[in-house]
Amino acid sequence: MAFEPKTPYLAVDGIINLQDEFGNWLGIVLIERKYSPVGLAIPGGFVEVGESVERAVIREMKEETSLDVVVLRQFRVFSKPDRDPRFHTVSVVFECVARGNPKGKDDAKVAKVFSYEEIPFDSLVFDHREILKKYLSDPLAVFKRL
Amino acid sequence: MAFEPKTPYLAVDGIINLQDEFGNWLGIVLIERKYSPVGLAIPGGFVEVGESVERAVIREMKEETSLDVVVLRQFRVFSKPDRDPRFHTVSVVFECVARGNPKGKDDAKVAKVFSYEEIPFDSLVFDHREILKKYLSDPLAVFKRL
Repeated sequence: MAFEPKTPYLAVDGIINLQDEFGNWLGIVLIERKYSPVGLAIPGGFVEVGESVERAVIREMKEETSLDVVVLRQFRVFSKPDRDPRFHTVSVVFECVARGNPKGKDDAKVAKVFSYEEIPFDSLVFDHREILKKYLSDPLAVFKRL
Repeated sequence: MAFEPKTPYLAVDGIINLQDEFGNWLGIVLIERKYSPVGLAIPGGFVEVGESVERAVIREMKEETSLDVVVLRQFRVFSKPDRDPRFHTVSVVFECVARGNPKGKDDAKVAKVFSYEEIPFDSLVFDHREILKKYLSDPLAVFKRL
């Protein structure tokens, strides 16, 4: 290819709101990362060439948490150059919902649901603390609406 | 670097709502592209490594239209693999406002404002027809709110 732009890496992350069989919101699914940087994180991963961001987030949620999510909306793009300590990664963050039991797989050692009141902000890696704070204060967040 | 993900290229595009000195909305700024694919387009360009998407759209709007825009919000991410005929490019589209006279520069042969009723949808390249149709039907679009 003659012209090859050099741009940041593109990732997706999914804020999964987990519901029980009675329609109650249990909280948000977080994973314990297997690779550096280790710590708790919203599940996510890199977008593949030829894949839309919506397909990417559905694939990554399945790979890391075993959950089949429904994507509700694009929440927001996070792009600060230092948000990923390895290199510049831009992430499209989605609001998702799911029902079932999360099970850590692939890059995730463990996947676990944390109630909205008990999110361990200080254990979150990358800028996921900022992402989740923004999400929890969003009046349109699904667990506040239904 | 040990681990190098291969992801789509990342771009930004700006839907610039142009206002006159009386506070009237004149329409949207489009450019005539100098390079392939030629045709009319929303101004935009690739994000540089080390640059946030917000800075990238401000820079690109200045380079292509000479306008100093104010970014109102992230509108939406467009990521269909075939949206750019050259390679897979994911674009973060912003809603912007500006006042002044657009002047084509850089990759833009001409920059011109089109009233909301006179957008030449059939001359638009990439998926910019779809982007602008979605934007014009958005109840939150700034020219409908103020």
